Amino acid sequence: MDVLEAIKTRRSIRKYEKRPVPEELLEKILEAGRWAPSANNSQPWNFIVLKDEGTRKEVARVATYGKFLAEAPLGIAVVIDPQASTHPVEDGAIATQNMLLAAHGLGLGTCWIGSYGSVHEEKVKKILGIPENRRLLSLISVGFPAESRKSTREELREIVFIDRYGKVT
Amino acid sequence: MDVLEAIKTRRSIRKYEKRPVPEELLEKILEAGRWAPSANNSQPWNFIVLKDEGTRKEVARVATYGKFLAEAPLGIAVVIDPQASTHPVEDGAIATQNMLLAAHGLGLGTCWIGSYGSVHEEKVKKILGIPENRRLLSLISVGFPAESRKSTREELREIVFIDRYGKVT
Repeated sequence: MDVLEAIKTRRSIRKYEKRPVPEELLEKILEAGRWAPSANNSQPWNFIVLKDEGTRKEVARVATYGKFLAEAPLGIAVVIDPQASTHPVEDGAIATQNMLLAAHGLGLGTCWIGSYGSVHEEKVKKILGIPENRRLLSLISVGFPAESRKSTREELREIVFIDRYGKVT
Repeated sequence: MDVLEAIKTRRSIRKYEKRPVPEELLEKILEAGRWAPSANNSQPWNFIVLKDEGTRKEVARVATYGKFLAEAPLGIAVVIDPQASTHPVEDGAIATQNMLLAAHGLGLGTCWIGSYGSVHEEKVKKILGIPENRRLLSLISVGFPAESRKSTREELREIVFIDRYGKVT
């Protein structure tokens, strides 16, 4: 799938088919995360693949948002090391977005469950054994889509300025 | 360009040809930012297109990192409203990454100048007239590449865990 098309057509998908995500597609998704840029190429991340259904259900149970992870055939947790980069949140977000786009390009649906600083972050860290000095940036649910979604955005003229904040031409 | 290829082959480019970035390519890049996902679709961003060479040079002068912006034919500043989203830094990073990938798919080179919380953030905010209650997430330099770059990443086996932090199989 063309990169511009992937960016414009990807929607958050929260309902999935039961069938598992093939291992070779999972690897392509992780590869997309691995190749994310990061501040000084610090790569301050680990990706925890949530293969075990019980673990996904346990995580979903404590998640303030993202109950649908319990019914997804796969999950990925993006963990960052805040000491390892000057911009660890941005770095982890880039890796997450790369994985969402790659999954969409492979015909898979995903939803980003925001976790950094959320109410559920500490609870999920305990379940997944994530060390105190690491942060949970995001959880990603993954599966073949069982729904199609539409979305909207502000028009460019509403969000773009020229040379100076507030200047529209 | 295929989305997986775009993700894996994009490198940070800091040297650019003098020729300007055509308006239709700039619009495709901004479209890619516009269609980024955000927490609750809050879209807490503005994009300031740095068309004026003097402004780019002024910004580059105060930037702790990113002096090459002075020689780039175009720049984009990504501004976020921290009050408008539960995850404004992640949202702004997603929009930035979408624009980097789109630019690469269009044959353009970019470099992400990390700005959120940087030494130069306040100085650039003053130059661009960005209000006190907004944050500068990133600066992006854009142009046709005048260099080619290679990079490396940790192998998947070094960064991926299964079901639990530290568990590799």
